[in-house]
Amino acid sequence: MENYSDILDIIKSLKYNEQGLIPAIAQQYDSNELLMMAWMNQEAIKTTLAEGRAVYWSRSRNELWRKGETSGHIQKIVEFRWDCDNDAILLLVDQTGAACHTGERSCFFNQYRADNT
Amino acid sequence: MENYSDILDIIKSLKYNEQGLIPAIAQQYDSNELLMMAWMNQEAIKTTLAEGRAVYWSRSRNELWRKGETSGHIQKIVEFRWDCDNDAILLLVDQTGAACHTGERSCFFNQYRADNT
Repeated sequence: MENYSDILDIIKSLKYNEQGLIPAIAQQYDSNELLMMAWMNQEAIKTTLAEGRAVYWSRSRNELWRKGETSGHIQKIVEFRWDCDNDAILLLVDQTGAACHTGERSCFFNQYRADNT
Repeated sequence: MENYSDILDIIKSLKYNEQGLIPAIAQQYDSNELLMMAWMNQEAIKTTLAEGRAVYWSRSRNELWRKGETSGHIQKIVEFRWDCDNDAILLLVDQTGAACHTGERSCFFNQYRADNT
């Protein structure tokens, strides 16, 4: 992609649900650690790209959610990706501190190993 | 988690959307490569854990989707994870071949670098 008008076309071509939202996965760009999954609308995507940091849509507060605005745990955008059928986003980010509000680095700390059954 | 009744309780406690679905992210367990995102319902989760391979819910076909059933590109389950607010699943898998129907290893091959703007 060469310029901002291209990405605006891409944003329009992504598939949003009936609430105008698309899932967005955040992954640490160098370690490949999976950090979290949240949701974005077109405004959140544009703001993310304009500000160079992850800005999601808060479904509970119904407003833009600038990740790390209060905690300082921001996610600097390294690369913006989307999948083959245009219905999911992958953000490669540089995460400051913990991604999770619990203080864990990743939100996916709950685990079940299949070999425990 | 110690036994299967525990995981049944966990499955019940996960948060599903109005279609009874929850996002499921698949990640290669050793390289941490992000492979794809799809959707699961309770039946898909139970089948995944029972069979030890990723089984999603196909929203287009409205049926269980045994990943790799026709292509052979199955995803063996190494670990089943879920996030802090119980509304997303992370599968650590061992992917045979390509995860994407296009032949790409990952579905997230479309990319836009913020520094190109």
